[in-house]
Amino acid sequence: MKKFMDKDFLLETKTAKTLFHKYAKEMPIFDYHCHVNVAEIKEDKAYKNITELWLSGDHYKWRAMRLFGIDEEFITGNKSDFEKFYAYASVIEVAIGNPLYHWTHLELQRFFNINEPLTRKSAKSIYEKANKILNNGLTTRQLIKVSNVTKICSTDDPIDDLENHKSLIKEGYEVSVMPTFRPDKAINIENADFVSYINKLAAFGTDITDVKSMLKALEGRLDYFVLTGCKITDHSISYVPYVELSYDMVEEVFKKVYNDKNTAELTANEVEGYKTFVLSELMDMYAKRGMTVQLHMGATRNNNTNMFNKLGPDAGFDAIDDNQIAVKLSKFLDKCNQRQLPKTIIYTLNPKDNYVLGTMMGNFASSEVASKVQFGAAWWFNDNKDGMITQLTDFANLGVIAKFVGMLTDSRSFTSYVRHEYFRRILCNLFGNWVENGEIANNEEVLGAIVQDISYNNIIEYIKK
Amino acid sequence: MKKFMDKDFLLETKTAKTLFHKYAKEMPIFDYHCHVNVAEIKEDKAYKNITELWLSGDHYKWRAMRLFGIDEEFITGNKSDFEKFYAYASVIEVAIGNPLYHWTHLELQRFFNINEPLTRKSAKSIYEKANKILNNGLTTRQLIKVSNVTKICSTDDPIDDLENHKSLIKEGYEVSVMPTFRPDKAINIENADFVSYINKLAAFGTDITDVKSMLKALEGRLDYFVLTGCKITDHSISYVPYVELSYDMVEEVFKKVYNDKNTAELTANEVEGYKTFVLSELMDMYAKRGMTVQLHMGATRNNNTNMFNKLGPDAGFDAIDDNQIAVKLSKFLDKCNQRQLPKTIIYTLNPKDNYVLGTMMGNFASSEVASKVQFGAAWWFNDNKDGMITQLTDFANLGVIAKFVGMLTDSRSFTSYVRHEYFRRILCNLFGNWVENGEIANNEEVLGAIVQDISYNNIIEYIKK
Amino acid sequence: MKKFMDKDFLLETKTAKTLFHKYAKEMPIFDYHCHVNVAEIKEDKAYKNITELWLSGDHYKWRAMRLFGIDEEFITGNKSDFEKFYAYASVIEVAIGNPLYHWTHLELQRFFNINEPLTRKSAKSIYEKANKILNNGLTTRQLIKVSNVTKICSTDDPIDDLENHKSLIKEGYEVSVMPTFRPDKAINIENADFVSYINKLAAFGTDITDVKSMLKALEGRLDYFVLTGCKITDHSISYVPYVELSYDMVEEVFKKVYNDKNTAELTANEVEGYKTFVLSELMDMYAKRGMTVQLHMGATRNNNTNMFNKLGPDAGFDAIDDNQIAVKLSKFLDKCNQRQLPKTIIYTLNPKDNYVLGTMMGNFASSEVASKVQFGAAWWFNDNKDGMITQLTDFANLGVIAKFVGMLTDSRSFTSYVRHEYFRRILCNLFGNWVENGEIANNEEVLGAIVQDISYNNIIEYIKK
Repeated sequence: MKKFMDKDFLLETKTAKTLFHKYAKEMPIFDYHCHVNVAEIKEDKAYKNITELWLSGDHYKWRAMRLFGIDEEFITGNKSDFEKFYAYASVIEVAIGNPLYHWTHLELQRFFNINEPLTRKSAKSIYEKANKILNNGLTTRQLIKVSNVTKICSTDDPIDDLENHKSLIKEGYEVSVMPTFRPDKAINIENADFVSYINKLAAFGTDITDVKSMLKALEGRLDYFVLTGCKITDHSISYVPYVELSYDMVEEVFKKVYNDKNTAELTANEVEGYKTFVLSELMDMYAKRGMTVQLHMGATRNNNTNMFNKLGPDAGFDAIDDNQIAVKLSKFLDKCNQRQLPKTIIYTLNPKDNYVLGTMMGNFASSEVASKVQFGAAWWFNDNKDGMITQLTDFANLGVIAKFVGMLTDSRSFTSYVRHEYFRRILCNLFGNWVENGEIANNEEVLGAIVQDISYNNIIEYIKK
Repeated sequence: MKKFMDKDFLLETKTAKTLFHKYAKEMPIFDYHCHVNVAEIKEDKAYKNITELWLSGDHYKWRAMRLFGIDEEFITGNKSDFEKFYAYASVIEVAIGNPLYHWTHLELQRFFNINEPLTRKSAKSIYEKANKILNNGLTTRQLIKVSNVTKICSTDDPIDDLENHKSLIKEGYEVSVMPTFRPDKAINIENADFVSYINKLAAFGTDITDVKSMLKALEGRLDYFVLTGCKITDHSISYVPYVELSYDMVEEVFKKVYNDKNTAELTANEVEGYKTFVLSELMDMYAKRGMTVQLHMGATRNNNTNMFNKLGPDAGFDAIDDNQIAVKLSKFLDKCNQRQLPKTIIYTLNPKDNYVLGTMMGNFASSEVASKVQFGAAWWFNDNKDGMITQLTDFANLGVIAKFVGMLTDSRSFTSYVRHEYFRRILCNLFGNWVENGEIANNEEVLGAIVQDISYNNIIEYIKK
Repeated sequence: MKKFMDKDFLLETKTAKTLFHKYAKEMPIFDYHCHVNVAEIKEDKAYKNITELWLSGDHYKWRAMRLFGIDEEFITGNKSDFEKFYAYASVIEVAIGNPLYHWTHLELQRFFNINEPLTRKSAKSIYEKANKILNNGLTTRQLIKVSNVTKICSTDDPIDDLENHKSLIKEGYEVSVMPTFRPDKAINIENADFVSYINKLAAFGTDITDVKSMLKALEGRLDYFVLTGCKITDHSISYVPYVELSYDMVEEVFKKVYNDKNTAELTANEVEGYKTFVLSELMDMYAKRGMTVQLHMGATRNNNTNMFNKLGPDAGFDAIDDNQIAVKLSKFLDKCNQRQLPKTIIYTLNPKDNYVLGTMMGNFASSEVASKVQFGAAWWFNDNKDGMITQLTDFANLGVIAKFVGMLTDSRSFTSYVRHEYFRRILCNLFGNWVENGEIANNEEVLGAIVQDISYNNIIEYIKK
């Protein structure tokens, strides 16, 4: 029996151990997609206790607590910090097979040097030990430093002023904290807040009267982002839209909403036609600037109206959609490619899409940059051992795994960097199994380089090109 | 090499063996979803021979025999009982990798103490030995008793009189045999037998003139079921419907069919709107009574018209559908939840839906009962080793596996209880692998309790709440 | 650690080794679906060098090279043959986990006796050694002979003259090279080349004025194919169509296109109605002649317009579609079955469909031939170790694996026959694991026979019936 989550956690073979300890472990982290609050980096936030660090904003943990049957008072309610922590411990004790179980223990090990399992029994002593360490200076920046992070891409709205990013640059902060341009609100014309959002966009100085001027306003913001170090954009969409409307029709749809405040009359076709047009124009802007686009597909959000009314979005009530995606995705990328396709990483929340995305990579490969269209890392609900093994195996079967740009945390938490370690262990173990099973050549140099590339070098290279 | 299906069948590690033999094995069975004929329990049916027991009504076995190329005469036709058994033996001999192979041998072992493989060669002696044991008193109740079953939920139509259930209660039969309320026929308004069914419903005394009175009639039957011990309801649907029609429209649709006998004019939207309304009203009735709802999604039935005309339904000609299900399911549950959502177990026949169902759980969790919405056990065509491992792994990754309500047979056969043992072995082996691989803490007490909960305690607790 | 791809490659247990070396290895190959150029067999083509053999037409390899970032000049462009080979070597060196990695090394081993891994370092010496062997008489026919191939089905258009097939028969070539009837162009009425294709069909002597006469013309060609040894037909379709139009409507749709050259006005419903009618009429013709039909579902082709304009079809820019397929497939097969359903092998490119196809088998089983409807082998993008294990496991869980008709190459290359070996190793290893894990009886005779049946005997038997 292997020891519980020791230094060889998830490394089942000698080769896996060598690949991880000699090659993967030392690589820095480029967390190229996450949702951290940059203000907290700027202020170098300190944490009162581990409940604040872990449980004040992590909807993954909240979700598990609710599924266990914990009352909301212990989750987002008014119970004491220790009561909340104890409640979480009671869940983790039995949440075997859930990635939270591994993340929690990796975080305890790496940041707090706590190696015993979190249970109701150990909750009190762990709480106290962790709090002591937090109070002894384990601040936001310290968490980043201990994790060997060199670059971070936050996720930002085009109307954000990016003051914190600029301030970090000015200060000369050793970690590169870059904004990500995520203009979802300018695309989701069917949403109630569309008009007010476009007005906010106009407030930056572009007189918005039509789609053309709105795109101009967005482009202004994009350039502002680029000046502030932005290399990556991000879009959250159920599926990649593809309805071809004439330009005049697109303008008409926009005006129906923006001038007449009339979303009720929009047809599904009009909405998708507008989105197709705007997204493809943005893709062109991105390509011209050598940027990398991320398309995150397949979430259904805010599924519980009662809880949405109580807690708002991103509170643990999202799930997975199951649209047909293949033809539209292909036609949309082809449309862009006939002008200029930017580097594009496509993520799906529904693993049924893996083989569609894995083969989409091959359609738009080119010598500009290796695997220009990428099937992105196992995301959100798939970000678990099985999901990662599946994504890696599917990527390898359908593409050249050596060119994969690798892992990101997608997290709001500064302790989530252990997910990179988790990923690297799984990666090294997969390769180790192949070697030990005689399926691939036992060439430590080649495999070590691939592991280091996927861990860090590829994303650096990909973004740069 | 491990011995063929010995006491450690499917248990690959020491931990797995401990968990199964010390914790899982002794737990009783609550078979909370099946299709047994309650009359056979009442009469304590005896079996002429193993062909009658095994092959007179089991469409799983028929299907495999047909796929092997066996003539229908040996399946549902007029060949002798031994000829049929021999034909089945010839299939099982080579049906490796099919769950029937394991079920068949587990049933031979547990009920007949026969440990050799069933082949053409062994068919005769096994036939004789099994028949002798059957003739020596291995009746329906004996099969239930030997299997350590404490509770059974049969599947029943609202118009059933439940006389056998009542008679068993009156008799004081030690096993609790509860009806399940399955009102599919009142929902499937597009079916030819809808009007005649509603008339039968009306015959219980409620004058049915509209949807409202039909619901009243159904509620009357529901209360009758509840009085007879019913705790669970069941719906078989391609996908959970979600079309919002006004109440007046729903009444109009109903009247078009019920008064005017005119199904031809129904649009797909009208059918789904009617279903959405009726199902959501029923959900409310269930919630008010603290009942548990089962939604079985994804079957396409009676795919072979020729054979349907010859043999009728449930004869082995069903298959798997592949609808988009996520958004409608989410909206429907949310609609119910805004009133009062009953405890709901959702099953899919198509494993492509696993991650959708696994995340749906989290949207409607609450402290009323742990994992109030459950991603149900691997069902029907998925009820095999791989399907169970996948469902368990997916459930664990997306939820808190310790709160899973576990396995059911979904069977027409009284020997199918071995499927609970099969499930428990797979469960214990999965946990055993995690422990031995250092992925979870080696805490026998905690894991033993989880195993016992999933085997039996959770469903008891869940139904009760 | 196992040695790199030695004689026990992929064989992890003693049983697996016995099954492969004693039973599977010696079986000949019936490659019942491929895309080889029969003219090359006829002329017994010799290869200038391994670049011509491997890289002149293999879009699998091109695709991987592009994903690695290789410039098109080294793929389909004007670089020297060695430069192209070297570029491919640089990809293979790191394309771990991709089936090309295994195929490439198996081909080097079996045809060239080269056992070292292909890398940038070994590229030059491997290039020279392989070329020497090619120049010493490793021609097309020699590749076929070394591979122990007895039968080949090429893929042909109804308007092909089949002169090469006839010539091979006349010559008395020891390998049976049979045409496959693939009338896609007569079915895809929405395509621009439909009218010109129908005119070519008419040129064989049937005056085509309507659908009826077009079917007559097709039937004439079918009979010509049958006379030339054709036993199998093939259809490439996104999904199996099912829209019932009246016969008059179908004729109207045809005439709209054929007489009026007006495809623009076709509705999706009309297109699908036409396809449903023509395909079902063809199914009837096939059934009457005892033929086997292959339905290849789920490809999206030519996704990159720029590259299509440059290189044409089949150049490595195809991907996977994700239609709903279950209900239409079921209804179409049922419609055929009510007349006479031919033997039908259904393949999907999207593994999300596996369980749909696996259960479809059971709906139309009969005693005419074992597993009359078959869930076809892992195809194209699924033709990798994981895809094959999944397809085999799914087939076994849902059917009787002993009756599976097994593997084909689907390849344009005469070195691809090693994929049969690859498949057999995976098959034997799967069975070996089951035996060694005590899950199935350890009966070498039975298992050896099943392995030989799946490798060769079943497809011979299936085609014959």
